[in-house]
Amino acid sequence: MPLVERVVLVGVSGSGKSTVGRAVATGLGWETVDTDATIETAQGRSVPELFATAGEAAFRGWERAALLAAIARSRVVIATGGGAVTDAAVWGPDGLGRAGTLVVALDVSPAVAIARLTEQHRREGASTARPLLAGADPIDRMAAMKAARQPAYDRAGITLPVDHAGPALVAAEIVELVTAANDGASPEIALEAPSGSSRIVVAPGSLGHVGTLARARWPRAQRAWIVTDDRVGPLHAPAAAAALVEAGFTPETVTVPAGEVSKSLGGVGAVYDRLLGDGIERGDLVVALGGGVVGDLAGFAAATCLRGVGLVQVPTSLLAMVDSSVGGKTGINHAAGKNLIGAFYQPPLVVADPALLATLPERELTSGWAEVIKHAVIQASTPAGERNDLMPFLERNAARLTNLGEPALSYAIRRNVALKAAVVAADEREGGIRAFLNFGHTLGHAIEAAGYLLLHGEAIALGMRAATRIGAAIGICGAETVERLDAVLDAYHLPRTTEANADAVLALMGSDKKREAGRQRWVLPVTGGGVCLRVDVEDGMVREALGAVLDRTVE
Amino acid sequence: MPLVERVVLVGVSGSGKSTVGRAVATGLGWETVDTDATIETAQGRSVPELFATAGEAAFRGWERAALLAAIARSRVVIATGGGAVTDAAVWGPDGLGRAGTLVVALDVSPAVAIARLTEQHRREGASTARPLLAGADPIDRMAAMKAARQPAYDRAGITLPVDHAGPALVAAEIVELVTAANDGASPEIALEAPSGSSRIVVAPGSLGHVGTLARARWPRAQRAWIVTDDRVGPLHAPAAAAALVEAGFTPETVTVPAGEVSKSLGGVGAVYDRLLGDGIERGDLVVALGGGVVGDLAGFAAATCLRGVGLVQVPTSLLAMVDSSVGGKTGINHAAGKNLIGAFYQPPLVVADPALLATLPERELTSGWAEVIKHAVIQASTPAGERNDLMPFLERNAARLTNLGEPALSYAIRRNVALKAAVVAADEREGGIRAFLNFGHTLGHAIEAAGYLLLHGEAIALGMRAATRIGAAIGICGAETVERLDAVLDAYHLPRTTEANADAVLALMGSDKKREAGRQRWVLPVTGGGVCLRVDVEDGMVREALGAVLDRTVE
Repeated sequence: MPLVERVVLVGVSGSGKSTVGRAVATGLGWETVDTDATIETAQGRSVPELFATAGEAAFRGWERAALLAAIARSRVVIATGGGAVTDAAVWGPDGLGRAGTLVVALDVSPAVAIARLTEQHRREGASTARPLLAGADPIDRMAAMKAARQPAYDRAGITLPVDHAGPALVAAEIVELVTAANDGASPEIALEAPSGSSRIVVAPGSLGHVGTLARARWPRAQRAWIVTDDRVGPLHAPAAAAALVEAGFTPETVTVPAGEVSKSLGGVGAVYDRLLGDGIERGDLVVALGGGVVGDLAGFAAATCLRGVGLVQVPTSLLAMVDSSVGGKTGINHAAGKNLIGAFYQPPLVVADPALLATLPERELTSGWAEVIKHAVIQASTPAGERNDLMPFLERNAARLTNLGEPALSYAIRRNVALKAAVVAADEREGGIRAFLNFGHTLGHAIEAAGYLLLHGEAIALGMRAATRIGAAIGICGAETVERLDAVLDAYHLPRTTEANADAVLALMGSDKKREAGRQRWVLPVTGGGVCLRVDVEDGMVREALGAVLDRTVE
Repeated sequence: MPLVERVVLVGVSGSGKSTVGRAVATGLGWETVDTDATIETAQGRSVPELFATAGEAAFRGWERAALLAAIARSRVVIATGGGAVTDAAVWGPDGLGRAGTLVVALDVSPAVAIARLTEQHRREGASTARPLLAGADPIDRMAAMKAARQPAYDRAGITLPVDHAGPALVAAEIVELVTAANDGASPEIALEAPSGSSRIVVAPGSLGHVGTLARARWPRAQRAWIVTDDRVGPLHAPAAAAALVEAGFTPETVTVPAGEVSKSLGGVGAVYDRLLGDGIERGDLVVALGGGVVGDLAGFAAATCLRGVGLVQVPTSLLAMVDSSVGGKTGINHAAGKNLIGAFYQPPLVVADPALLATLPERELTSGWAEVIKHAVIQASTPAGERNDLMPFLERNAARLTNLGEPALSYAIRRNVALKAAVVAADEREGGIRAFLNFGHTLGHAIEAAGYLLLHGEAIALGMRAATRIGAAIGICGAETVERLDAVLDAYHLPRTTEANADAVLALMGSDKKREAGRQRWVLPVTGGGVCLRVDVEDGMVREALGAVLDRTVE
């Protein structure tokens, strides 16, 4: 990612571009340019007056000139007029396409935009009169205008939904995006759980800093065992080892076969043989370098070798970054079910480098988005979840994220890690809200186990589709919740059905370890966002919901 | 144990019999009889005056009569004159041998006794004048008198050293002994550690209450798996199962082969197969019924099944009761060494029933005393360790304890559990004082591993003998510390030497998991009590110390 020299804020009137822009400029110590204000000063009249007298075409000309002049500068935050970006000419290499330009779209829903503009008009009087507020049905007209401009807004580097976030919070996040890009500053997420605390770094290029990050946490440690698999190891183990050597560690590499086969008693036995055979001591480190399987396996080995040695999780898959590397669940499989043997063990350090996702097979990347979408569904039921912006964020940034576009990708991972960390901090042992993270997993795990044809996230996507249909059947959410979830899962290329036998899936559901007194606890979505726990789901509902995601030709 | 209807306190002048007696009577709501006071009232003169005028023989007659009259009563606490119990006649079935009579000897060292008497004389004046204080060398004369009377004091049911314990604490412990015997009241020890809390019950007959104790902790649990071995299971599993059924649990029994062979990856795999195959849920219980091997194995299985299920430790060996069942260490062995795979997992409930020790093979009982003696050595370095009474307690009660005499046995176990719990609460993860519990284990583990000829405690006894010699070689303790430890180990029938090769032992020491940055940390005893950590032990000293406990014919 090139260094960011300027930030351009785009979005409809009422999205807060000017207010957020001033706060970002203050935060960065940069100057601010408001193109509307520039034109008003130059022409000596207000924007509504200019529209009325000179006409829109003349105004767009002045606006383009003001924007291009501002973009020629550096260390500047530019708030554009709402329509400026619809002019294709401003997206050229001397315009918004200029190197070092971060375009941030502030996304506001039409009703919220109109409410904000009305309030501003009431407060500041005629000078802020907007044509939009004058006629009938302003919300409908705002919606139509926003829809027309959406393709232009979608050319931004990242879209941030701002309905439920104040300008100070939005500005702080934009400042964070810029400083991360320019200074390599890694905003850290701290997880304080009863069993221990975890420090989580999410930043492109952070694999190269894993040694210094580990050294800061373990000043006296000497040896480190990189546990990885035969697919990830060749790609990233040399870089991890080099970073560890640089910080004074003596690394060894333990490579296990890729895939679930290693997440077994035999697999962990092989890791024990290496660690204990090499004489690991309590102050030494295990570095889990890989996806969910390696993280679970190496984490369990680290938790149980000498009753606990140092542990760094270095997730290399999207699923591991946003989910399995955070929260301290470690474990292996048993013939009776997945993850039935394990321990809670918080990794003191997690280093997530989104740049590593470039080497991830497409299907695994897709699978990872399922857990991200799961977080968006449950957000409203988690600490600080009233912001409820992850679902619109995923909807608005689907193309950027599936193409690994920065800074949207790092922002998405960071927000997902923060959500997971907040849930785990509130409920490490899954006595309460941590259970919400199982949304889609009750049927998802069973679907995954029924055939082993699907990756974990693919199965969870189907589990979420089915669980949402159960929610609709019970009546806690409506058809629009089902449609919206289906659409976002489709946008991230997650499957709609799979080939599996319904009876087999239902039989496998019986061995879920989250059962309580023999009854299945379901996590189901609620209208408007968030989830709830229900035990009153009838078999017929489950079968019906399952029918929607299973290919019926398999019996 | 018969119900206790009366308590008789015996001991030399200055041991605090009268003060403690009044406090015990208050605590129990009983009456108190002080035989000296009874005689003084009846004869109208003070004890010193009666000695001077009527002579000792006449006084002993009055004393015997007063004591026998008091023993005929119930709900009474009797403080005897210091010499009364030397009269063999008072030990008959109508005297101290009467059913329902608990004789407690208060053991005070001569110097402390003389200091207390001197202080009392200064405070209360001539009426308390004692012949002992009158002449030269009162401490020597007290020591001689005490030595002469010791065989009589040793006929008590329990001897409590009181040098560093105030009368209120001693009285409270005696009240606890009586209420435990009469009401089955189980004084509970609470262990609050970062990873969880533990409630420990030590009481004869408590196996019969394991169901109700577990029910109080887990009101809604339904199933319980008793994990035991093929030696303990036939003896005690039926009683445990019956107690669980009575409290509404559905118990299953999982029996593993007795011995270290089960403490392996294969052994825990077999336990997983049963628990997970039977469909264990997070709210269900594992009941570890057995010695250290079963406790470690079943505890590790409980810690790692579903990332943690309910756990009750029911130790059936002395070693397990005073050591391994308390503190949350669980684990299995690896080819590279013992206990190298494991987890910290506090059992929410520990039920120790000293009556079960009657079925323990003699050699295993003996082995258990080694950890008890270890606690006595380290006591002064543990929380509240300034009482420093466990070594004299073990010395004074050796015959009672090796014969499983109550209430000395339960008292000993309770005090040892309390010490271990206090250490673990202060330092669960062995960052500091918990390391003191490894006294004798550095060489002990290696000696144990070198031949597998010895039981754990037998090897630890040799490790303690050797470590104490290293302490003397370094100069932090003297020959008298070595002699005293040797004597108490001898008194509990622990071995003095074994057949093992010194080089093999030294090589095995290298894989100890408590090494730090490649250096061996030694826990060594200090003159006067307690231990310290040292890393400056030279190989020659270790070899020399090892020579004292290895049979040199093996090379």
